[in-house]
Amino acid sequence: MAAKKNTGQRRERLEQQIQFIIEVDKVKNIFRQTYLSDRQRKENDAEHSWHLALSAVLLKEHIEEDVDLTKVIIMVLIHDLVEIDAGDTYAYDDAGAATKREREVKAADRIFGLLPADQETYFRELWDEFEEYETAEAKFAHLLDNFQPFLLNDASDGRSWAEHGVRKSQVCRRNAKVPETSEIIWEKMLEVMDKHIAQGNLKAD
Amino acid sequence: MAAKKNTGQRRERLEQQIQFIIEVDKVKNIFRQTYLSDRQRKENDAEHSWHLALSAVLLKEHIEEDVDLTKVIIMVLIHDLVEIDAGDTYAYDDAGAATKREREVKAADRIFGLLPADQETYFRELWDEFEEYETAEAKFAHLLDNFQPFLLNDASDGRSWAEHGVRKSQVCRRNAKVPETSEIIWEKMLEVMDKHIAQGNLKAD
Repeated sequence: MAAKKNTGQRRERLEQQIQFIIEVDKVKNIFRQTYLSDRQRKENDAEHSWHLALSAVLLKEHIEEDVDLTKVIIMVLIHDLVEIDAGDTYAYDDAGAATKREREVKAADRIFGLLPADQETYFRELWDEFEEYETAEAKFAHLLDNFQPFLLNDASDGRSWAEHGVRKSQVCRRNAKVPETSEIIWEKMLEVMDKHIAQGNLKAD
Repeated sequence: MAAKKNTGQRRERLEQQIQFIIEVDKVKNIFRQTYLSDRQRKENDAEHSWHLALSAVLLKEHIEEDVDLTKVIIMVLIHDLVEIDAGDTYAYDDAGAATKREREVKAADRIFGLLPADQETYFRELWDEFEEYETAEAKFAHLLDNFQPFLLNDASDGRSWAEHGVRKSQVCRRNAKVPETSEIIWEKMLEVMDKHIAQGNLKAD
């Protein structure tokens, strides 16, 4: 790509990319409802996204369909950038969910719009694909987006579930596509849920 | 990979991977000397690694040599995991640098050793390649590892440089391979350094 552009155009692209890199620094201050494994504080979106990308590399072997790993990694790296404007909506917040889509689309327009047009389109299409939750890559990305906080909830003694009074049926509904995406990971999730029901951290319904 | 293994082996691998995923959660509490762009607090290793991976996608076009983007992304996602045991050594801390290598090799043995053998080897070789700083991918990863905090230093008014009394010659020595890795990014860095020398945040030597 570099060879096709003159120095002025390349320099303009670099300035736009730097502006975007600095803008997205803000996700480090968007906090989620999940506690870190040490239970000391909640996790932010940048940490969460890093953890998903790394987990994608490790867990790919457990996914039933073939997936393009690079696409999944980039998808999870950018999936929460819209929260810079739209804020984090807790997984089991039904009232917030009603307005989430509108807030996030507006955010995607502004934030990805900072980039050179080709990179804006690339990121926007990846984010749209994630949101549509239909392709093998989007299903793997959503599995990661659910399984990582699930593992942190387990490691932090179910604190976030207990604080929000979460029920097993809510977790199952949110993870409805996980059994078809990875049978072995779904089995693991069922075991962990049963353990936390026995411990009183998760409601049995 | 999944098809070649029986359920018991796959389940054992998943448990090892989960143990690793929870262990590396600790890098979210390893803080660096770089301030976030809002100047309110310092950045941790997980946030830093996320920012590098995302920047790799955006800045690849400015790299002189062909690079394997996926390899660079995974390299930066794992490059600081050794700091869980070894701690962060500030870029311009010469005393800390003397013992850094030994501490980090020991950490790599333990942390990557949590994984199934094939994944341990894969991550260890990527980390060794990063440390050796010779291949095109390692040079791009190091450029990112230097340029991202450089941009945050710029955005936070040179606060970290000023606090540590950093000199331009130290920044140039640390970035000695950047001109050959990306001429356009090196030009940008020289401009930013000159601005901060004029503002008194960076010493001219």
